[in-house]
Amino acid sequence: MPVAHVRSGDVLQVHTEDCFAGLVRGPADLPSRVCRMPYLNPVSGPFFVEDAEPGDTLAIHLAAITPARDWGVSSTFPHFGALTFTSHTATLQPPLDERVWVYDIDRQSGTVRFRATETDHYVDLPLDPMIGTIGVAPGGFEARSTIVPDVHGGNLDTPELRPGTTLYLGVNVHGAMLALGDGHARQGEGEACGVGVEIATVTTLTIEVIKGVSTVWPRLETDREIMSIGCARPLEDAYRIAQRDLIAWTAELTGLDDLDAYQLVSQAGRAPIGNVCDPNYTVLAAIDKALLPASAPVGGYGALHARLRQCAAELR
Amino acid sequence: MPVAHVRSGDVLQVHTEDCFAGLVRGPADLPSRVCRMPYLNPVSGPFFVEDAEPGDTLAIHLAAITPARDWGVSSTFPHFGALTFTSHTATLQPPLDERVWVYDIDRQSGTVRFRATETDHYVDLPLDPMIGTIGVAPGGFEARSTIVPDVHGGNLDTPELRPGTTLYLGVNVHGAMLALGDGHARQGEGEACGVGVEIATVTTLTIEVIKGVSTVWPRLETDREIMSIGCARPLEDAYRIAQRDLIAWTAELTGLDDLDAYQLVSQAGRAPIGNVCDPNYTVLAAIDKALLPASAPVGGYGALHARLRQCAAELR
Amino acid sequence: MPVAHVRSGDVLQVHTEDCFAGLVRGPADLPSRVCRMPYLNPVSGPFFVEDAEPGDTLAIHLAAITPARDWGVSSTFPHFGALTFTSHTATLQPPLDERVWVYDIDRQSGTVRFRATETDHYVDLPLDPMIGTIGVAPGGFEARSTIVPDVHGGNLDTPELRPGTTLYLGVNVHGAMLALGDGHARQGEGEACGVGVEIATVTTLTIEVIKGVSTVWPRLETDREIMSIGCARPLEDAYRIAQRDLIAWTAELTGLDDLDAYQLVSQAGRAPIGNVCDPNYTVLAAIDKALLPASAPVGGYGALHARLRQCAAELR
Amino acid sequence: MPVAHVRSGDVLQVHTEDCFAGLVRGPADLPSRVCRMPYLNPVSGPFFVEDAEPGDTLAIHLAAITPARDWGVSSTFPHFGALTFTSHTATLQPPLDERVWVYDIDRQSGTVRFRATETDHYVDLPLDPMIGTIGVAPGGFEARSTIVPDVHGGNLDTPELRPGTTLYLGVNVHGAMLALGDGHARQGEGEACGVGVEIATVTTLTIEVIKGVSTVWPRLETDREIMSIGCARPLEDAYRIAQRDLIAWTAELTGLDDLDAYQLVSQAGRAPIGNVCDPNYTVLAAIDKALLPASAPVGGYGALHARLRQCAAELR
Repeated sequence: MPVAHVRSGDVLQVHTEDCFAGLVRGPADLPSRVCRMPYLNPVSGPFFVEDAEPGDTLAIHLAAITPARDWGVSSTFPHFGALTFTSHTATLQPPLDERVWVYDIDRQSGTVRFRATETDHYVDLPLDPMIGTIGVAPGGFEARSTIVPDVHGGNLDTPELRPGTTLYLGVNVHGAMLALGDGHARQGEGEACGVGVEIATVTTLTIEVIKGVSTVWPRLETDREIMSIGCARPLEDAYRIAQRDLIAWTAELTGLDDLDAYQLVSQAGRAPIGNVCDPNYTVLAAIDKALLPASAPVGGYGALHARLRQCAAELR
Repeated sequence: MPVAHVRSGDVLQVHTEDCFAGLVRGPADLPSRVCRMPYLNPVSGPFFVEDAEPGDTLAIHLAAITPARDWGVSSTFPHFGALTFTSHTATLQPPLDERVWVYDIDRQSGTVRFRATETDHYVDLPLDPMIGTIGVAPGGFEARSTIVPDVHGGNLDTPELRPGTTLYLGVNVHGAMLALGDGHARQGEGEACGVGVEIATVTTLTIEVIKGVSTVWPRLETDREIMSIGCARPLEDAYRIAQRDLIAWTAELTGLDDLDAYQLVSQAGRAPIGNVCDPNYTVLAAIDKALLPASAPVGGYGALHARLRQCAAELR
Repeated sequence: MPVAHVRSGDVLQVHTEDCFAGLVRGPADLPSRVCRMPYLNPVSGPFFVEDAEPGDTLAIHLAAITPARDWGVSSTFPHFGALTFTSHTATLQPPLDERVWVYDIDRQSGTVRFRATETDHYVDLPLDPMIGTIGVAPGGFEARSTIVPDVHGGNLDTPELRPGTTLYLGVNVHGAMLALGDGHARQGEGEACGVGVEIATVTTLTIEVIKGVSTVWPRLETDREIMSIGCARPLEDAYRIAQRDLIAWTAELTGLDDLDAYQLVSQAGRAPIGNVCDPNYTVLAAIDKALLPASAPVGGYGALHARLRQCAAELR
Repeated sequence: MPVAHVRSGDVLQVHTEDCFAGLVRGPADLPSRVCRMPYLNPVSGPFFVEDAEPGDTLAIHLAAITPARDWGVSSTFPHFGALTFTSHTATLQPPLDERVWVYDIDRQSGTVRFRATETDHYVDLPLDPMIGTIGVAPGGFEARSTIVPDVHGGNLDTPELRPGTTLYLGVNVHGAMLALGDGHARQGEGEACGVGVEIATVTTLTIEVIKGVSTVWPRLETDREIMSIGCARPLEDAYRIAQRDLIAWTAELTGLDDLDAYQLVSQAGRAPIGNVCDPNYTVLAAIDKALLPASAPVGGYGALHARLRQCAAELR
């Protein structure tokens, strides 16, 4: 059941809890002890978006992501992460030790302090807040865990979901049913240990319904780039999906045929890895907008990103 | 048989041909017609490095990579590339059309001009020269095609192999037997179509033998980062290898234990994709040197990179 | 909503439609034309099983699977199958031609006749009826498409689901919610083209609730073997899951420790591939019951299979 | 350098050592202690085959494989095997314990006795001798470790390489350079722990050069089936390769077009897994010869298998 009804053009300020539901606060709060499956990775929502129908696209602009507390937390987690035996990459070895790291967040200096657990080593990393999980309801009568990234968005876990980014998601059900959570103060590419610097946030976003324009895989737009997101295993399939979607998008914006667009993206594209730990891995494909015709409206999405940026700037 | 004998500390200026042996010069020179397997991807060398023995590391600093001509070339290639049926990702579909793209290289402006083949669209991309293939002889009595990236280096195909980078490779045989080639005026992450903007180059490099220090997977150092390279299929194994090697390297430099280093790299690391088309895919794991103790010599490699940088600067 | 309430010990006779809902009946009935997504792979059910609660196991014995018609049908399907570009193994090639094959089923002779579409070649294959899709409701508040095989069963697509087999599934929700469909007159290992010889069936099954015994991955028992089923991508993870589950099961039945059981299964196990086309691939791990202690009740499942076999024999 | 020159039609009796070079004889002989890399998996040969040239096919019929001793040996091996952290599926966990199992081989009863190391459990498995590694020299100026299976054969590790099987390998270099070793008293599908029941053997084989007939991937023929072998990672690519090669072979023998042959193999094919532990995994694709036209000579290979069978029978 939706927690609120919203309209195209609305600005939302959403409080999100961290992926542990706020229950992991110190070294003794081992996730496997204090959390109970499947109650991990809670999201705020769903928001029913008026006039959003299957076949439309929902544009979500991340105007601001503010850590709600002055700390974040990370951990290892039994049978989860890229460098451990998991339920699916099943081996006979015992799991890695479960350990919790608490980070100090200093919003003034824009830093996140990593403190080693076994030595007194510490180092400040740049604060770079992002939303790990944001999506709409899946189609085909499915309901998916919030741990899963797929065509409906979900647990995309990419640092590109930072303030200033617009996310385009295809609408699958009447009202779209938008939800978000799983803020990270920052994460590395791949989220190797399976857990970012997990934070509660206050996230400000604006939404727009783009009628009659469908979107298959999640897409992003920043001031500098357009990006497609592939969600799959193995990792090369996530790469392929993202490349293919970006090639189609580039072809649409430039009038190039598929092979010419394949060539351009092959030479000019970035391919940042999102996660290598979730039920689907995520890889992005990005191309600089400066390489696209200046006059090109960004696909069926038009000049929407610029407008949402303007709108976000006025909020401040 | 080695083409020359060199010593630790030597500066080499090496002429390299492009991956097509210079035979593809225009739209009619389809690679499958003008090239003959396995005579693709020729390398210059091997150079016998005096005093390089198994168990040592060979440091190779790329001082300069200069395009040898004012053009580069790319193509699709039957059954090769990330978005096509290949000999190994075997399907029943016909191959993609084979097509050649010729790029103008303007060293003055630092650009590479992409021209569409089917329309009159063109766009200038930044010139960013790199060496695609650089390696030593493999160990274990093996001989590998120059198309293969693996622990001995080889066809690593990552844009990070640009001027200013130091590459560390473990020595497997007496004399190391260094060889290089396959220059690219630039390439995107993943080299999706299987071919970069292929160029002949004049490449200047300095080499050093680091005695008694072994290196398992290829490693890079730039002014800003240290990086490990994983070579494997599927792509997640390349990611795992690179992450694990960088975690070990980070642990060595910081005194962190494995789990603390896992945590730090998980939050702070980059994971750029090299290629998703060669017999082994390549993924890098990188961490900013600013996050490592200032006093840390870079592994057994000491302050070598800084010294090689200095040396390269004096060459200009 | 359940279509019927059943009890432990009940015998069910279930009519199942084929995966195309009976709409593909001849060469002109191309699936992409006559079927509408997501209305593929319809199942009969769900059946609410009295007294089945999360933490229990549902044992389903396949007593008989009878083709409901004297024909079956198969096809290629755009972007589906192991040897074609798919939505996830995304390439730039056009899809394979869509084609329909109609098979004659001769129950007397126990054969299925393959007729080529482009020549007059035909050949009779053994009739070997099986159920492709059988499962309970997934846990964790998820709802999954019937096209997906996973821990809850579903689209397992293995020829081992033939008459005489007992399937063990963990119960995830109150009442289990059993459903089945997608009969095949036969299929090859891997179901390479993505479609078996699809048939409507009359399937007779007996069910039992095993209280307080949990089952993680789907398991099978025949007169000759016990088997575990792994569902995952890439295919090696499906293999790993199945092997690991069978090793645990073998250890339980023999008193071997994990490494001894690993050794025994490594030398004695079969590993039949189920499907290499569905959202999760399936691989089985099987060991001959003759290699297990004669006195061993089959896990927490006891002598249930023998009893269900007896029960099935009495039905005839 | 070849150990002997042989001719088409010759019968060879070859003594092969086990994969540990006979150095592992009891529980205390841990492979990582008594063996030295890369001196694992020794092969007997190479044999120079007169008149075998690139473009020809070498047919090798396994007439007999006799265990040379009354024991075999298996083990876990650090960082090797399907259910453990490896050099490539790299995790941060410690390796599994290294342990040795010694098997009694009873040729009279045709059994291999597994004895648990931690309990007094034992069980007799059927003796089913096979050759793990058999191949010719690779092409393209490569030299490969005997641990690698690929187009040249090598460490195929499939139980199908038992007496009565004919193996077809494409010749890559003048004289073919045939070598073999790595006998197993038996192995399970996938060779999960990475090691079969390793034995020294006396292997009898007959060879024939098929002039002017090229073979890309290794192929097998038994009295009952023809089979193609795919060697690749991930496992689904090994599956794809084998299926595609068998489809082409089936099309050639039946006159079916590719899609009709795809359909037939999809419904009638077996897909036994060879290994899931070596540098390339192996999967086979098999179809019953009874489903092929009786008159069909088996590809370019003609009635060779029958003739070699006859020849082998006369040897006894």
